[in-house]
Amino acid sequence: MVVASADPEVPTRRRGEYRVAGEEPLEIRLGTVTSEPTAVNVTMRTPGDDFELAVGWCVTEGLIPQPVALHEVKYCVKSPSAGDVAVAQEYNVVSVVARHVHGGSRRTQVTSSSCGICGTESLEALELRTPTIVASAGPTITAEFLVRLPGLLRGGQKTFEETGGTHAAGLIRADGTVFVIREDVGRHNAVDKVIGHTAIAGGLPLDAHVLMVSGRVSFEIVQKAAMAGIAVLAAVSAPTTLAVDAADRMGITLATFVRGDTATIWTHPHRVT
Amino acid sequence: MVVASADPEVPTRRRGEYRVAGEEPLEIRLGTVTSEPTAVNVTMRTPGDDFELAVGWCVTEGLIPQPVALHEVKYCVKSPSAGDVAVAQEYNVVSVVARHVHGGSRRTQVTSSSCGICGTESLEALELRTPTIVASAGPTITAEFLVRLPGLLRGGQKTFEETGGTHAAGLIRADGTVFVIREDVGRHNAVDKVIGHTAIAGGLPLDAHVLMVSGRVSFEIVQKAAMAGIAVLAAVSAPTTLAVDAADRMGITLATFVRGDTATIWTHPHRVT
Repeated sequence: MVVASADPEVPTRRRGEYRVAGEEPLEIRLGTVTSEPTAVNVTMRTPGDDFELAVGWCVTEGLIPQPVALHEVKYCVKSPSAGDVAVAQEYNVVSVVARHVHGGSRRTQVTSSSCGICGTESLEALELRTPTIVASAGPTITAEFLVRLPGLLRGGQKTFEETGGTHAAGLIRADGTVFVIREDVGRHNAVDKVIGHTAIAGGLPLDAHVLMVSGRVSFEIVQKAAMAGIAVLAAVSAPTTLAVDAADRMGITLATFVRGDTATIWTHPHRVT
Repeated sequence: MVVASADPEVPTRRRGEYRVAGEEPLEIRLGTVTSEPTAVNVTMRTPGDDFELAVGWCVTEGLIPQPVALHEVKYCVKSPSAGDVAVAQEYNVVSVVARHVHGGSRRTQVTSSSCGICGTESLEALELRTPTIVASAGPTITAEFLVRLPGLLRGGQKTFEETGGTHAAGLIRADGTVFVIREDVGRHNAVDKVIGHTAIAGGLPLDAHVLMVSGRVSFEIVQKAAMAGIAVLAAVSAPTTLAVDAADRMGITLATFVRGDTATIWTHPHRVT
């Protein structure tokens, strides 16, 4: 059961004649029915869709096993368990209670605007839990569909239109229908929001959708896609070396520089006809 | 004494007909003459200028007090102290030995492409060590100078020209001379590199320079500027709400959307004539 409450924050704030993209810290707490939620992350995020972000982050970090079984998601406000939460931060703390969690994982830390892999304690531990997408999984798409993706994403980028300050991520089916689009100052947060949205709806793994992102693709975006079972990842801007290597190793079709009539397919091109 | 070695990595890698911006983890270790260096951060960065990045990160995190006194900076290669460093990661571990360090600070963590404030353990600890720039400090610049800054920065963005995958940060004097420009997949890393460059040269605080960044401005960029004594911060793209609030509180002149003939000055406009 998910206890949802209306998001109390708006994603932008007026300042003079401008609207500015919101950036606030969000503390994510994770627990089970039998264990008190404890802080597992603090991320700098654009307020709004906070439950999706909290659940999505826990899932893409491998802290909640799949299939995802949630008991409760709530803000830590006006409840005995809120305890140490200052009033000004009431809507900056989300508690996720899942039926099962993976124990002994990451430390508490602060994640800024584009940080999706914080908390690993050594170089070697970076990829430990990431699954590989098999070649037969995922949608098959056409090149014509691929170059339509930025336009489909742009249709959902309302905060960007107002502020110029946010990235977006969208899950789009191979028939062109948009499943969900979310925005955030952090590109990794936007990805966590769409994956969290899906996890709350019981829709993981995402093997029929393409993940389209508005910015560049670095390692953690590829890793998050793999954790959600996403086989096709497309982006408007450039990849990094480690992103290309990771997509190759994890079995993900990576297309970047998707602009105008062209795109560059770096890995596993068999899913694009 | 700083033991510098030539950077063994190039910031880009060829893949087919393209060049791709490098992204590799860098483990930063910090110690003193009398204490063995221990891991304080793992950041996802573009290889190159690694010593500057390591020193800059330690300074902007407040782990090394100012004036900065360094004893040694080196890769953990082919030395008895490297111990547990695998050969493939030899040039992904930098050890910083300073005369003095602030104790009891941050935990080990992994920082991705745009993460500059990782490791804080709670919402309340976010701003603890950040100084305030007094109104009389810093350069006074003209509006004409301000709109020249993106062009001056672009002149140093060689990796971006090749890959489209990196951000840049530059320190520019009020007379228009470029002091240093650095690039990285992480905008916060680019800022740490120019501040580290200055710290190694004994040039902190940076009270005569403008910090120009290629992307957006989020909280951690403002915080890093304040830690280095930078009074004027300019950016091509949008700020976040928390960035504007922080610049206001920390005494920094923040100008964003510096494009073409225009710019938006959000805070402390007295430094722009």
